[in-house]
Amino acid sequence: MLAADNMTVILHQTRSPENLGSVARVMANFGFSRLILSDPATYAFRGAERLAVKGDAVLDAMSVARSLPEALKDCVYAVGTTSRTQLEGRTALTPEEAMARLADHSQRGRVALVLGGEQRGLSNEELAFCTDILVIPTSEVQPSMNLAQAAAVLLYLCSREGRKPAEQAAPAVEEGAKMGTVHALSERMRQVMLEAQFLNPQAPDHILRELERSLLRARLTQREAELWLTAFKHLGRAVAGGKGTPGKGAPSRGPDRNG
Amino acid sequence: MLAADNMTVILHQTRSPENLGSVARVMANFGFSRLILSDPATYAFRGAERLAVKGDAVLDAMSVARSLPEALKDCVYAVGTTSRTQLEGRTALTPEEAMARLADHSQRGRVALVLGGEQRGLSNEELAFCTDILVIPTSEVQPSMNLAQAAAVLLYLCSREGRKPAEQAAPAVEEGAKMGTVHALSERMRQVMLEAQFLNPQAPDHILRELERSLLRARLTQREAELWLTAFKHLGRAVAGGKGTPGKGAPSRGPDRNG
Repeated sequence: MLAADNMTVILHQTRSPENLGSVARVMANFGFSRLILSDPATYAFRGAERLAVKGDAVLDAMSVARSLPEALKDCVYAVGTTSRTQLEGRTALTPEEAMARLADHSQRGRVALVLGGEQRGLSNEELAFCTDILVIPTSEVQPSMNLAQAAAVLLYLCSREGRKPAEQAAPAVEEGAKMGTVHALSERMRQVMLEAQFLNPQAPDHILRELERSLLRARLTQREAELWLTAFKHLGRAVAGGKGTPGKGAPSRGPDRNG
Repeated sequence: MLAADNMTVILHQTRSPENLGSVARVMANFGFSRLILSDPATYAFRGAERLAVKGDAVLDAMSVARSLPEALKDCVYAVGTTSRTQLEGRTALTPEEAMARLADHSQRGRVALVLGGEQRGLSNEELAFCTDILVIPTSEVQPSMNLAQAAAVLLYLCSREGRKPAEQAAPAVEEGAKMGTVHALSERMRQVMLEAQFLNPQAPDHILRELERSLLRARLTQREAELWLTAFKHLGRAVAGGKGTPGKGAPSRGPDRNG
């Protein structure tokens, strides 16, 4: 059972008003209403309305975010879509597996289906912001689907999840950790772990995103995410203090050089 | 397990080159190649190629039929798509049920997925030529899907059927009855049953289509369909002979009036 009100569609770096209109229409077809454009490749979205046949309500309520993390900040779970199979060690879900997880997490808070731009889809860096990745299996001859058609397939599967009866009375679920909080945590972890020389300053992101995703997978509650964030704030002060405090005899960044 | 080579997409009275191109692309995405336009609403299909990204092979091999029965003539099974729920007593399948039947019948011969025109979809009369009907469940606010997006949903489900392993070694299947043969049978039945006063001459189609569909559901072999056809040819001659033969004392259409 998917909580349709918690379902969000995020179009990242969308370029074509036709695709935007078609996605709005198919959202209306399947009863979804929350659409976010993240870092759109154009703001000339006239023309979308013509194609959005009765999807106007979706377009009227649409919001725009400057970046993917900003678009995701209120969500507790996100699955990113790609047609690529080289995924830097991550394993892609099937559409059905992904929709089951969206439905599951929708009991904890807002969830997002993220679709990439027309020209290159989502990069590994962008997919790293998503809890999971899904691939729609396609032919080798033409693996790349049109954005609005991929949205149609996935939202159909979503709506089917929505029609499944809840298997049993769901236990009261604590509010899930928002990805915005987890992202703030992750940024704090980056800073502290760089200072503590755990992360390679040349390429900190890869490891950091793995840590971040492991936390997302843990189905943290919002309270737990805030606890972690507070903990890293304290760790950060302690690391800085350890280095910066004259009493400890360590000049700024000293441990790095003396260690 | 769907036999992809036996899968046919029929677009009836398509108007928009954009939709044609998008359907060709999504067919290529999912490894299907046989496309028939039936009674197209325009022949100005320039522009389709731009949208058919790598679906050119599909467009190159596309054929055109003057009517839906002509498009269906080589098929042993067809499912027509509609968003209407008023279906004159017929019960619509879910997309999953319909795709399972397509897969099943694809072991017997060519099968067709029929999609209607952009403006009004398929009429009841057109749906009557199809063995089954399917409805993609949509929201009451906007029940009508874009043609190319409906095709995407259904062809995705088809391709998933194609990836399912055959449950057991399929028994050798006799060649299924082609809808062209069944349609010829049906036309012969119309003629004979009108003469025999079984059908109402003001509205023969409704009953006739029911009889035709019951035969389609029976999974006739081609040989059986030809037997039926021959049988009705003989019946036709006998009915005409019975009426026309002076020796029986019956003038033309006499039994109608004397009976």
